[in-house]
Amino acid sequence: MSATLSRTETWSLLMTFGCSIAVLANTFQGEGAPVVASIAFSALAFSLTYAFVRWSGPSFAKAGMKGKDIGKLYPKELPEGMGSVAAAVFILVLMAFIPFAFYKDIVAATSGGGNRDVPSPPTFRESVDTGRFLHRFPHSKLSSYQSALNTLQATTILGLADDILDLRWRHKFFIPALASLPLLIVYYVDFGVTSVVVPNFLIRYMPRGARLINLGPFYYAYMAALSIFAPNSINIFAGINGIEVGQSLVVAALLVLNSSLYLVPFPGNPVLHSASTTPHPATDSHLLTLYILLPFIAVSIALYIHNRYPARVFVGDTYCYVAGMTFAVVAILSHFSKTLLLLLIPQIFNFVYSTPQLFKLIPCPRHRLPKFNARTGLREPSITPWEVGKQPKPYLIKIFSIMERLGLLQITRLVSGEAVPDVPHVKSNGMAHANGHTKSPSSSVISLSSLAVPARTPSPKPLSTTTKIGAQGKIVATSNLTIINLYLVHRGPLREDELTKELLIIQLVCGLAGLLIRHKLALFLFGMDNRPIGGVWSLV
Amino acid sequence: MSATLSRTETWSLLMTFGCSIAVLANTFQGEGAPVVASIAFSALAFSLTYAFVRWSGPSFAKAGMKGKDIGKLYPKELPEGMGSVAAAVFILVLMAFIPFAFYKDIVAATSGGGNRDVPSPPTFRESVDTGRFLHRFPHSKLSSYQSALNTLQATTILGLADDILDLRWRHKFFIPALASLPLLIVYYVDFGVTSVVVPNFLIRYMPRGARLINLGPFYYAYMAALSIFAPNSINIFAGINGIEVGQSLVVAALLVLNSSLYLVPFPGNPVLHSASTTPHPATDSHLLTLYILLPFIAVSIALYIHNRYPARVFVGDTYCYVAGMTFAVVAILSHFSKTLLLLLIPQIFNFVYSTPQLFKLIPCPRHRLPKFNARTGLREPSITPWEVGKQPKPYLIKIFSIMERLGLLQITRLVSGEAVPDVPHVKSNGMAHANGHTKSPSSSVISLSSLAVPARTPSPKPLSTTTKIGAQGKIVATSNLTIINLYLVHRGPLREDELTKELLIIQLVCGLAGLLIRHKLALFLFGMDNRPIGGVWSLV
Repeated sequence: MSATLSRTETWSLLMTFGCSIAVLANTFQGEGAPVVASIAFSALAFSLTYAFVRWSGPSFAKAGMKGKDIGKLYPKELPEGMGSVAAAVFILVLMAFIPFAFYKDIVAATSGGGNRDVPSPPTFRESVDTGRFLHRFPHSKLSSYQSALNTLQATTILGLADDILDLRWRHKFFIPALASLPLLIVYYVDFGVTSVVVPNFLIRYMPRGARLINLGPFYYAYMAALSIFAPNSINIFAGINGIEVGQSLVVAALLVLNSSLYLVPFPGNPVLHSASTTPHPATDSHLLTLYILLPFIAVSIALYIHNRYPARVFVGDTYCYVAGMTFAVVAILSHFSKTLLLLLIPQIFNFVYSTPQLFKLIPCPRHRLPKFNARTGLREPSITPWEVGKQPKPYLIKIFSIMERLGLLQITRLVSGEAVPDVPHVKSNGMAHANGHTKSPSSSVISLSSLAVPARTPSPKPLSTTTKIGAQGKIVATSNLTIINLYLVHRGPLREDELTKELLIIQLVCGLAGLLIRHKLALFLFGMDNRPIGGVWSLV
Repeated sequence: MSATLSRTETWSLLMTFGCSIAVLANTFQGEGAPVVASIAFSALAFSLTYAFVRWSGPSFAKAGMKGKDIGKLYPKELPEGMGSVAAAVFILVLMAFIPFAFYKDIVAATSGGGNRDVPSPPTFRESVDTGRFLHRFPHSKLSSYQSALNTLQATTILGLADDILDLRWRHKFFIPALASLPLLIVYYVDFGVTSVVVPNFLIRYMPRGARLINLGPFYYAYMAALSIFAPNSINIFAGINGIEVGQSLVVAALLVLNSSLYLVPFPGNPVLHSASTTPHPATDSHLLTLYILLPFIAVSIALYIHNRYPARVFVGDTYCYVAGMTFAVVAILSHFSKTLLLLLIPQIFNFVYSTPQLFKLIPCPRHRLPKFNARTGLREPSITPWEVGKQPKPYLIKIFSIMERLGLLQITRLVSGEAVPDVPHVKSNGMAHANGHTKSPSSSVISLSSLAVPARTPSPKPLSTTTKIGAQGKIVATSNLTIINLYLVHRGPLREDELTKELLIIQLVCGLAGLLIRHKLALFLFGMDNRPIGGVWSLV
């Protein structure tokens, strides 16, 4: 990758940059100005990320942050952890946006010109009474925004530590919960709502027919769990060019679509009917969501252009963590955590499906990304090898058979009489890295791709093909438990870019279905859709 | 350095850890509880930093973050950038402290149990009227705290980027200003005070005898400049074991002393007389200062123990930036930015004194730390070499002579007839790194210590001794423009630990004198000392 921008790129980016600045200079005033400012800042964020990713690539590689793209015929060393550039731009833009988001409030609270117009210094009594004469400023809104920023910054710091030091997953698993602390505190003092709505068909079983269950402290545990789950689930749904950024873009776009339903009335809108004249009561929350997601989408697109097949940079852990935490932050602040879970169905499936390997019930190789077949140029499911002398425990074999029958596992068994391949024992190290590449200071773990068919050698009988000869055949290999491998087991070998594209389409379709369920079926299940009914708010 | 803790260390740290947790579990309630909690959190932060610095050293070195301690007879490779561990612990502790700082307010605002006690869900009208029934919570206080956190986190991210990528100073110089944006915005909406008090002897020259000058937007520029200056000034007052952390500890301790004057009445206290019964109106601001500085001091002590002579780790840029920004943050939020400048006199001197090299008016070698003399084991001033064929420009020679006469520069001139040493031209790269060590992936810059007397060879005539033979002698070398070198020029060679100790004593004495000026002379200059006089607040 060249570290410089082409002339076309330079001029396009400069144009974008200039236009954004021009728009920003004119968006302090007026109705809807913050949204315009947010869009302009997003364009700015796009051009900055695009340029900085290109410029700083060599510095990252020089600092030892680089990795081999082992899914290619001629693996190249690419800069690693470039998502941290996107995360840094994202955070700086979120900071710079603060005065634009609150300009109207600042003007209202300070009568037009900060405190410069206050005719004479107030007396002690006066300033106590008026709380330093600025009590009208909506501090709770600023506080929400700041807590989102606090949490995202803490996540970035965690991600950088992980990208540099390669933390063990037991060291880092719970840190997102700590990072989400500012968020939860602001939630506590600002909303404090810990009740969930009871579905209609369950109301008859509730004491006194209650429509709400108060989860109390458990609701905070649930939100903390969400902020642990979202970053980690995106980080393990990885391994092929563009999948990390692609899935984040799809989820972010769907969240923007969801929030738009609360902001723009149009015919057929399940939330705001075209006839409605009053804004939805959750307008502020969903505006906040847009302010956070629009720049996120912008930096992600800039990163995606460099990370898509064939990748010129790797994104690293920082981006995955920040992406997941961004979703958790907006879901918590804007009260749609369950909607978010509907959009993360592939991630949830992948997480649950991965747990046997994550918790070492089954050995977990360091890299579980799909194997590159150098002969065909396609990706195939990667495997966990089993030595003939060291077969899985009997209960595991039973579970494997069930999973095989359910189509959830590919098992390779030994054809009797076949030469036993000398499968080395693969060291497990907890949370599998699936970032599509090995770190350059190569670890002691044996790469799985070297285990299978050697590159560019004709392979009449690839190891990963199922060769069933009855249950008595020893298990040589099982497919690794990731959604990407499972998809390949059923779909057959695919080229990397097609694989990414199809997985992203699945993500999109699942998400759209989720939104449909959320807005159409919620009416049947809960009898309301975030609309006040008798003073009670739905918190679906 | 062993990566494990000794048994004594383990038990002491576990004891500290356990005691802090025990104290924390009991400090939610009562008057002064947040201060107790802050002290307990600081003890916690100390033990965490101490252990993590020790444990993660090898990981840092393995990730390529290491450097040679060139000030020793047998230079060892030490882990570099370990201050980022201290910064991360500092930030996590500041986050975890939020509920403790605001517990009383949360209880007051939510009548004892969050919103769980609210008997029935409020109607829409009600929740609009009461701002979701929590308008009593002091959001502006939380907002101040959050903005401090935002700024410190952004600084940490900048520092990490610098530690990893070795940013050029023109790229990073202005980023602290962006990092301070959340702080300035909160300052704007919360205080908005941009007036400074006019000294008594100037009042007669003011229009209508005004006692305040309103600096308006310039006051914000001044605060942004402070947040650029403080981190960078600490980062360049560096180069010998323990000096970065040591100076930060001295400044932080003096700031705590200053804030204590506003909180604890005692006889002779220039701020709160022992007779005073009402708390000082700035109590909240100075409590906030303590909440931020106490954990900072704790993590710094833990780091200092590992960084003091002979160093076992290097602190890196992250720590220096975070330290400087911590001071800027508390000074801005608590309105004592001019007091802070009085405490940073050595840093200001060093910064001004360095500018000719920083701005490349004079060539600036990559490392300006004092030279290690292997024969004596002492540190001597380091030099900028001048080729005989490429002398400084005439105006520079004139300035050099003036500076020499003022005792601000050591000039080495050629004794006529002496063999001309083959001085290589030293490449300049802007902001000099003075961190006491070379980065392992060694740069193309020629080390100055190799330029001088070769190690362990008898040197009857060290190059750095001034050998005046009249103005016509060509200049061979000038001492580098740092306060450390200047001190050595006058004090003579010193062992590294003594040098650090004496510089820290200077810092302490300057700071104490500054505080004395601040609190004793302010009364004469301004006729008041942060006490209300006729409803006007002094903002010295």
